[in-house]
Amino acid sequence: MALIVQKYGGSSVADATAIKRVAKRIAEARRAGDDVVVVVSAMGDTTDELIDLANEISPLPPSREMDILLTAGERISMSLLAMAIANLGVEAQSFTGQQAGVITDDAHGRARIIDVKASRIRQALDAGAVAIVAGFQGVTEHTNDVTTLGRGGSDTTAVAIAAAVGADVCEIYTDVDGVFTADPRIVPSARKLERITYEEMLDMAASGAKVLMLRCVEYARRNKVVIHVRSSFTGHTGTLVTDETPQQGQEGTSMEQPIISGVAHDRSEAKVTVVGVPDVPGTAAQIFETVAGAGVNIDMIVQNVSVAATGLTDISFTLPATDGARATAALGAVQDVIGFASLQYDDAIGKLSLVGAGMKSHPGVSAKLFGALRDAGINIEMISTSEIRVSVVTRADQLDDAVRAVHTAFDLDSADGEAVVYGGTGR
Amino acid sequence: MALIVQKYGGSSVADATAIKRVAKRIAEARRAGDDVVVVVSAMGDTTDELIDLANEISPLPPSREMDILLTAGERISMSLLAMAIANLGVEAQSFTGQQAGVITDDAHGRARIIDVKASRIRQALDAGAVAIVAGFQGVTEHTNDVTTLGRGGSDTTAVAIAAAVGADVCEIYTDVDGVFTADPRIVPSARKLERITYEEMLDMAASGAKVLMLRCVEYARRNKVVIHVRSSFTGHTGTLVTDETPQQGQEGTSMEQPIISGVAHDRSEAKVTVVGVPDVPGTAAQIFETVAGAGVNIDMIVQNVSVAATGLTDISFTLPATDGARATAALGAVQDVIGFASLQYDDAIGKLSLVGAGMKSHPGVSAKLFGALRDAGINIEMISTSEIRVSVVTRADQLDDAVRAVHTAFDLDSADGEAVVYGGTGR
Repeated sequence: MALIVQKYGGSSVADATAIKRVAKRIAEARRAGDDVVVVVSAMGDTTDELIDLANEISPLPPSREMDILLTAGERISMSLLAMAIANLGVEAQSFTGQQAGVITDDAHGRARIIDVKASRIRQALDAGAVAIVAGFQGVTEHTNDVTTLGRGGSDTTAVAIAAAVGADVCEIYTDVDGVFTADPRIVPSARKLERITYEEMLDMAASGAKVLMLRCVEYARRNKVVIHVRSSFTGHTGTLVTDETPQQGQEGTSMEQPIISGVAHDRSEAKVTVVGVPDVPGTAAQIFETVAGAGVNIDMIVQNVSVAATGLTDISFTLPATDGARATAALGAVQDVIGFASLQYDDAIGKLSLVGAGMKSHPGVSAKLFGALRDAGINIEMISTSEIRVSVVTRADQLDDAVRAVHTAFDLDSADGEAVVYGGTGR
Repeated sequence: MALIVQKYGGSSVADATAIKRVAKRIAEARRAGDDVVVVVSAMGDTTDELIDLANEISPLPPSREMDILLTAGERISMSLLAMAIANLGVEAQSFTGQQAGVITDDAHGRARIIDVKASRIRQALDAGAVAIVAGFQGVTEHTNDVTTLGRGGSDTTAVAIAAAVGADVCEIYTDVDGVFTADPRIVPSARKLERITYEEMLDMAASGAKVLMLRCVEYARRNKVVIHVRSSFTGHTGTLVTDETPQQGQEGTSMEQPIISGVAHDRSEAKVTVVGVPDVPGTAAQIFETVAGAGVNIDMIVQNVSVAATGLTDISFTLPATDGARATAALGAVQDVIGFASLQYDDAIGKLSLVGAGMKSHPGVSAKLFGALRDAGINIEMISTSEIRVSVVTRADQLDDAVRAVHTAFDLDSADGEAVVYGGTGR
């Protein structure tokens, strides 16, 4: 008998039929003897509809009120799900973020979980009931105000609850079968991974893989919560996210640790180039203090070699395209202070990232990546590396080709209908 | 500077346009210097839509989950209303029933308010903000579970909040201009009352007048909360519900106290007749204990004179038609024990009630009522009276004619476009 947390996203509970199907799965797990806590998102497009309604009312709704509004969505889905489970003869009780003891800071719209006081969830489990918890929401400790965790926060709720109750596994149900070596819509031969480490998953998420949110994986790593990403539409085993490196001879692993977990891509960034920057100490600091002061997180940074004759250099960086206007406005306002010549803004870029814990002990991964892109005729504009990741920026319209070329070059493609054992030959 | 509670129903906040209009009215009151607490219902048909959704999921949803589901409605309307007010430059904060300190018992779906701990509302007012409170909902004291007060509970929330903060007046905004001498859809010449006492309003509400809920008026009477029923669509003064009897010479009152406040009607009841009841002590008690045991409230009771030869009598009573099946089933199950001959059920009845605090000092009101119905050719099936009310049961299809005849007989009709001073001539 295990203690399981299951998280269902909006598409899994989009309407009454979908809710009943999910309820059946939950009731089966409970009847099999497991203790089950369920974290649920708002139904389908509910959150977007509520945002539209708010925008009809006010161009800049107060964030406290926005949070109260949006939390109505999970309130609806969680109570309906509890009803559907009860209707199958299995006891179920739903809990708001507040009732579930999800305590957050007071950063409305992007609150951080600071504690989970899971006594009511434990009581429900002890009474034999399935506990249904509203994802995405919490409450401030002292003022008892309702907060939301930001988009995708339900995954983080699930991991936080799993950590608080000491669950054996946190199952994240989604509309795909697990974590893939690349986005199957771009690389049809992409394979589902059996396992991936927290570190690899973090780099995949940071590099544009949408299947799990970065902060959810961070929370899981910090609290050693085993995540099982799987489909709510099939019964298939999905992908385990753990801190274990697969051991020799274990089921589903090769004889050696694979080098590469997958190829992630991201089309949401833009590139800013600060042209003609005086190459004197402190200038880069001024630039990035300005950008940070505008509340913008940057990703990759490249500084060209200074041209000795002029004493000027160019600095390029990438950032979320949605922050582009804010960053360029902030920089434009200090152009005279910093003394750069001009700003260039380019949102027609794409980022490809090759992720794998194995690459840190295998030289030549970067060289092989650059070679594959060269052979495919794709120009590299920026490069950034970490211990387990290599990222490159390309033209946006070459990104899909780049992903396919790299996926093939690292032998990640599956054979026809057959899982390939990948990695492990010293490349 | 006054402290005002304003309550807006679902039709007043049915969509973004309506919410903005209500926000404008609230902002104006605040700008005029008043402290304002607003109680709001769910938007338009939201509650019905949520009930439909629940019924798609389960034929008998658990009442605790139903309450969590339904309270999403006010959560949406209250946050949108707060946004709309803030957008007009007036500070506003919304509060759930729990945040507003509305403590109830744990009777899910029909909870009673047992306390209001209004400290957060007071804080918001002290900070100069308009406090928006979710109507219809509360929270249990010890388990922190969400409850609802039953349909129309938002009026009760408003009165309870008004009592807790010591408001000068509780304005109930609705889609009519106030309390009328009869339903204007049936009696086009019905007049708006300037004032009505709690007792009269209680009898009007108990007799089918929909404008205020019985329990809301009870709460107001017990706590001396002055209610002002008025339209959210016009700026008109509505009807004051107070414990004051209008004094001589006061504006809007006649020289003498009016006999009759109005004519209420009710089409929602049914009549059960228990035929051939042994006329021995204790039989009536058995019948009404059985009905009460089925959770059914009865209204009027009539027992015929016993026929001496048989020792049998008939007992008729009225009850909400929605409880008819439950009551007759309960009685049918004890037919042999009580020894009655048969049951008759009739839901084609209507009830007319004449209400007025003045009638207790004026003889002949009942006689005049019966005479008016006789002249209109309407048969009376049951009669019940209190100090300030006479009710009669008629055929349902004669009810409208009965209301018009009685309204005219008691000189309640307004002259063309001109308010008539009514009552006061010793009838």
